[in-house]
Amino acid sequence: VEKYFQVYGRIAQADGGERFEFSHSYSKVYAQRAPYRPDGVFMSFEGYNVELRDRVKCISGVEGVPLSTQWGPQGYFYPIQIAQYGLSHYSKNLTENPPRVEVYETGGDRDTDRDRDTDGEWTVPKGCSLSTVWDKSRLSRVKEFSCPESSEGVSLQLDNSRDFIISFDLKLLTNGSVSVVLETTEKNQLFTVHYVSTTQLIALKDKDIFYGIGARSSWSTLTRDLLTDLRKGVGLSNTKAVKQTKIMPKRVLRLVAKGHGFLDNVTISATAHMAAFFAASHWLLRNQDERGGWPIMVTRKLGEGFKSLEPGWYSAMAQGQAMSTLVRAYLLTKDPAFLGAALRATAPFKLPAERRGVKAVFMDRHDWYEEYPTSPSSFVLNGFMYALIGLYDLKETAGDKLGKEARLLYERGLASLKAMLPLFDTGSGSVYDLRHFMLGTAPNLARWDYHTTHINQLQLLGSVDPAPIFRDFLKRWKSYLRGGRAKHN
Amino acid sequence: VEKYFQVYGRIAQADGGERFEFSHSYSKVYAQRAPYRPDGVFMSFEGYNVELRDRVKCISGVEGVPLSTQWGPQGYFYPIQIAQYGLSHYSKNLTENPPRVEVYETGGDRDTDRDRDTDGEWTVPKGCSLSTVWDKSRLSRVKEFSCPESSEGVSLQLDNSRDFIISFDLKLLTNGSVSVVLETTEKNQLFTVHYVSTTQLIALKDKDIFYGIGARSSWSTLTRDLLTDLRKGVGLSNTKAVKQTKIMPKRVLRLVAKGHGFLDNVTISATAHMAAFFAASHWLLRNQDERGGWPIMVTRKLGEGFKSLEPGWYSAMAQGQAMSTLVRAYLLTKDPAFLGAALRATAPFKLPAERRGVKAVFMDRHDWYEEYPTSPSSFVLNGFMYALIGLYDLKETAGDKLGKEARLLYERGLASLKAMLPLFDTGSGSVYDLRHFMLGTAPNLARWDYHTTHINQLQLLGSVDPAPIFRDFLKRWKSYLRGGRAKHN
Repeated sequence: VEKYFQVYGRIAQADGGERFEFSHSYSKVYAQRAPYRPDGVFMSFEGYNVELRDRVKCISGVEGVPLSTQWGPQGYFYPIQIAQYGLSHYSKNLTENPPRVEVYETGGDRDTDRDRDTDGEWTVPKGCSLSTVWDKSRLSRVKEFSCPESSEGVSLQLDNSRDFIISFDLKLLTNGSVSVVLETTEKNQLFTVHYVSTTQLIALKDKDIFYGIGARSSWSTLTRDLLTDLRKGVGLSNTKAVKQTKIMPKRVLRLVAKGHGFLDNVTISATAHMAAFFAASHWLLRNQDERGGWPIMVTRKLGEGFKSLEPGWYSAMAQGQAMSTLVRAYLLTKDPAFLGAALRATAPFKLPAERRGVKAVFMDRHDWYEEYPTSPSSFVLNGFMYALIGLYDLKETAGDKLGKEARLLYERGLASLKAMLPLFDTGSGSVYDLRHFMLGTAPNLARWDYHTTHINQLQLLGSVDPAPIFRDFLKRWKSYLRGGRAKHN
Repeated sequence: VEKYFQVYGRIAQADGGERFEFSHSYSKVYAQRAPYRPDGVFMSFEGYNVELRDRVKCISGVEGVPLSTQWGPQGYFYPIQIAQYGLSHYSKNLTENPPRVEVYETGGDRDTDRDRDTDGEWTVPKGCSLSTVWDKSRLSRVKEFSCPESSEGVSLQLDNSRDFIISFDLKLLTNGSVSVVLETTEKNQLFTVHYVSTTQLIALKDKDIFYGIGARSSWSTLTRDLLTDLRKGVGLSNTKAVKQTKIMPKRVLRLVAKGHGFLDNVTISATAHMAAFFAASHWLLRNQDERGGWPIMVTRKLGEGFKSLEPGWYSAMAQGQAMSTLVRAYLLTKDPAFLGAALRATAPFKLPAERRGVKAVFMDRHDWYEEYPTSPSSFVLNGFMYALIGLYDLKETAGDKLGKEARLLYERGLASLKAMLPLFDTGSGSVYDLRHFMLGTAPNLARWDYHTTHINQLQLLGSVDPAPIFRDFLKRWKSYLRGGRAKHN
């Protein structure tokens, strides 16, 4: 019965007899308490953990953002995943308490309060040097280290068994590395995560895990989630999915630096959400192309009957989620570069698929923004609603004049959504897309996860639009999760 | 569980344990063995028993066709029901063996073989007369009877306990009646069914049931199903539904005639399908209006959000089912009146609802023929397919030239069906109409009866059109009856 009805259940004792209790989904509908705002929590993304998904190969040391293997084991930067990584950390930052931060090294800057030397304890082996120096560009004292690659390196005692986000400012004058030694839950074995001045993505050799972080020849902050880095390294695989592993870090023992360079502001904290958010935002700034899009460099075959999307396609969902991310970065920083990128991201909404755009038109009447701009059109619902949310964020933020185009696109899209929503209602759930109508095939039923996503998106849109259709559909679509059905005649 | 999933089931013993066996419907999918033909069985209508439905008040004695109370307790002639009455008897005539016929009175015509006097035994009470006379118009000997209304009437012994369809030729010179005395299963009580020269529809007084048959001042044949006439009389009600009754005729005792008139060819048979079929066909001939339609003289409110259809509306389903009936009558008789009426019945297919037509257009693209030409359009699937089948019958029968219009209407409609069929597929059943899309409401799920009808109609259309969509949808839609579901993603 479980598999047939796609329900989850258990046999319960009740009223002196056995009773089979079932419900359709473990995934949760979140409560949209207040009206949605472009500077607020993004839908229910505070509950997402993008980086730990097994289709994320790892967080790139060079780019600071996840690399996807969802549709290709070689891995590729997937703008949707990157935006979701940013939006989830942005949302967690709003919903969680500020993290504990343990400071290990400030180049002695903290000693100005003269209470005590709070910086950590360094070990400098023979052949290595370590000193505190004045950095003119930062107007701050920093630690300069110099030791051959063949040496043990200078090491800073950390000994933190509570938190696992490490962060430090780094500038390298030669090739070099910063490594972190971890005690793990795996028989207390030590694993070392090496952040190396190469462009290699990730490697595993016995108990050593390597992430390339690029040359780092000017100052930058490296913030790494050691739990993620450890697990992605141990689970490293050539397939689409990272291998399951139970390993966890138990204690961050020490940091080891090699080569010639500078370190400053070494901390360990429970979270570093804004670092992740800005890593995503800056990646989006750097990687937007001249057409305003984030080209997706992987072949995507949506299914039988559709032509393949060849590498370089745009997605309305990527464009929209990027807008939602960039608008938040703009609202935090007021840096016009973020708003400008979000505004340029509307360009593909005006072009049809055959001109590399993301716009489809349903039955010559309803404009639609395609997650997958396939031929024929596919009308994927959840991607469309994410695109609408992005347009909403943008038109609300950019003002009447700059935001005019986004507003028009939003309004046309919303009208289409209201008209077409019934086509996605099966009377006991929802369909993922309209391929059945476009191809004359079976309906592509949305699994309960996606049905829940549809509900969450409708709640968000319904919180800023009073149209009764949102209220009515939400009530019914939520009832489907509890086994409700539309009436039959 | 039964009600929730709309399944029927039972607890079965199997493999040493209990098992809940379920299926979705008792209604049967019929097998379309050979390609459908306009002179063949109509779909699965050989299994229909229109007249015994509780929404049929009775078979009118004047018109010879059923009177519906489906949408009004006052009763009205519903062309769809009348056509289905005709088509079901036409189909039974093809699938059943010829009936037994017991002949009781021929006016002595059978005595020409001189073997024996096979005519029945008459009782002529005092004050009544009965004689055999020559009828010039019929070139046949007939029985002339004359007895006052106050008398017992002349009576013909029948004594048939096997079959219950009585038939006789009748001509009345005054008011009069022919009554049939029945022994019934209800404590062996006698009930008498009176066929009276009035226009009263039906009445019940104690154990006497009355049907008006009109003046009958020229020769006509009256064929009556005594089982139906008994049960409709005993169950007579002022509500929409005939009352449930278990009563059945056990024996046809005798026929009693009063007034002054002529009788001939008194028979009792097991069935008289062609009489019912031609009653329906002739009713359709007589009642087609100057617009080619059969106006439906009852208010029909399809549901919330739709304007009411006011009395006088046409239905594409009625037009189509009438075509299917009339074409069969034409093919049997070659009487051009039947074909002419069927051809004129296409006229409402060319007009939109607001001009009293039955045509709707889906999204400015797909022509549709409306069972209920509502505003907004409702796109009821089963009525549309019945309309298409009627157009098919007509275009196949009328030839290239006369049938040109029907062919165009059929082809346009069939193209719409192929394009729009996926909109009716919920992944676990079908929807009855597209009101959810037109009104922005919940889908109107088809109950399993209608889902089965959809399947039977698709089988019929698929038997004359090789399009793969029919094959694919049939396979999947049949699987839903056994609990199959479309895949989820």
